Order: sequence, then structure tokens, then C-alpha cells
Amino acid sequence: MECIVRPAQSADCDHLMGMILLSADGFGGDPFYQCLVAELAPEQEGKQGHLIGYALFFFGYSVNTGRIVYLENLYVVSESRGQGIGKKLMSEVAKLALARGCVEMKFTVAEWNVRALAWYRQLGAQDKTEAGGWHCVELGGEALQRLAGDRR
Amino acid sequence: MECIVRPAQSADCDHLMGMILLSADGFGGDPFYQCLVAELAPEQEGKQGHLIGYALFFFGYSVNTGRIVYLENLYVVSESRGQGIGKKLMSEVAKLALARGCVEMKFTVAEWNVRALAWYRQLGAQDKTEAGGWHCVELGGEALQRLAGDRR
Repeated sequence: MECIVRPAQSADCDHLMGMILLSADGFGGDPFYQCLVAELAPEQEGKQGHLIGYALFFFGYSVNTGRIVYLENLYVVSESRGQGIGKKLMSEVAKLALARGCVEMKFTVAEWNVRALAWYRQLGAQDKTEAGGWHCVELGGEALQRLAGDRR
Repeated sequence: MECIVRPAQSADCDHLMGMILLSADGFGGDPFYQCLVAELAPEQEGKQGHLIGYALFFFGYSVNTGRIVYLENLYVVSESRGQGIGKKLMSEVAKLALARGCVEMKFTVAEWNVRALAWYRQLGAQDKTEAGGWHCVELGGEALQRLAGDRR
């Protein structure tokens, strides 16, 4: 399937709404993430502008390796899977990341998503939970508020 | 123990070198992380400017919750542990995160670090690996290069 991968624009939010709930957080002067979208190439049955997937990511740092890119979410609509769209999106994120001096891509995968885990492994990814016992931990809104109010 | 938590400055890098290997990645026009340092309060036995810990973090996004802060590394020198320094650092990061509109703090903990996991749980954190089977995955330099070179 011929598709174009390009940076998401604010105008894409309506289209993306069906896939995730975007907001102003990724656009404007102080973006919290970047997003690439995959859309059908213009010659595809007049379906120009039809978004079929996205990769949402942000840049960060690892004290062990240096600059990293954190892939928050990779999504391809079900009817377009198995055609290399996900890999193309990943590849474009990798190019941007390398251009910014990143040495690693990090992300999380749910263990029930066996196909995704196998696919990422095939791309050369390492499961750090399996290999090194690393756990993903989250501290939510209420705990964050409590912590911020701490006077010690 | 009285200590001040303040943003790290480029001049702190020499001090921090003993704890981690910092570089220009956190300072200048295009920082990949932010860092708060804990230093002994001036009245502490003339040890002004003595750094005893740090919190290294960056901002990001979750498609589920919105703006997040990612705590990459929290460290307190061994002789200053058990005195609330880590919690004070966490608290300051939480304040900055809430001020930026974040609704969650994310981080990873190795399962052998039982004390840290228990401490974070006590602060209200959730172990998403234990609770939801989430795995931490990393795609390193060589795989990233290969992915970026992919022509599909």
C-alpha cells in the first residue's frame, strides 16, 4: 500500500480523534509530543488525505545511554495492517531520532499483545522487563498532588 | 537534614559527574532533560554547594491521560539516604509537573530494587508491570540505524 508519512498538523486532529483524543498539547509553542501520520497516497482511489495510522513520540534522556526517543503510541487502522505501514512510521521516527542525536528508542508493550512484542523483537528491540526485570511504574494525579503538597 | 533543591546549572556538571555522566544534553537551547539537584543548606557545617542528590526528568505525553513527566533517574548519595531527600526531590518534580499541566509521573524500577518499589508504592505509585503486564522495551542504536535505513 502506497502511503505518505508526514508530520501531523493541527487540522489532522479531527481525523485523529477517531483513533486517539488529541488536543493542543502537541501543537503550538510548547508541544509535549510530536506526531507523524500515515495517509494514503493521492493516487489511491481518490482517498487523498485519508489517515490510516500514526506514531506519537517525544524526546527524552537516559543516564545510561544519552538522548532517546520515547515512542508513546504506534497505531495503524485494522484494515491497513500487515502492509508495512507500522514499520514505515517506525522508520520515520527512527530517522528523526537519529537526526536529533538519539541512540535509543524506548516504549512499553502489554504482554497480552504477543504479536506486537514478537514484531518489535524482530526489529531488534529488547524486552527489558523479561531480560532485566524492569517494571513500568506510574504515579497518578492524586498521588502527584499529595507529593507536591509535601512539606518535608 | 536541611537541604535546598534547585535547578541544576551547567557548573554543577563537574559535581554530578561523580553520580552520573552529564553532558550538554540538558543545558543550552535544546535540552533533552531537566535536572533538579539537592545541595546541603549553607548552614550545614560549611558544606555549601555540596550536592547530595538529583532528579533527572523530562516531559512527555500519554494518549490515555495527557501530559506526563517522565522521571528518568532519582539519586541520593548513600550517606544521605533515609532523611527525606529523595522525597523532597520527587516533591519538587511533582510541583513543576503540575505547574506544566501534567497529570502523571512515569518511571521504571528494577525488580531487584525491592526497597525502591516499596517506597514508590507508599507514595501512591502503581506497578503497571505487576498490575497490567506492561513491559519496558528498548530498541538500541544498531536496530535504530537499521530501521531508519528501511526503504519499505
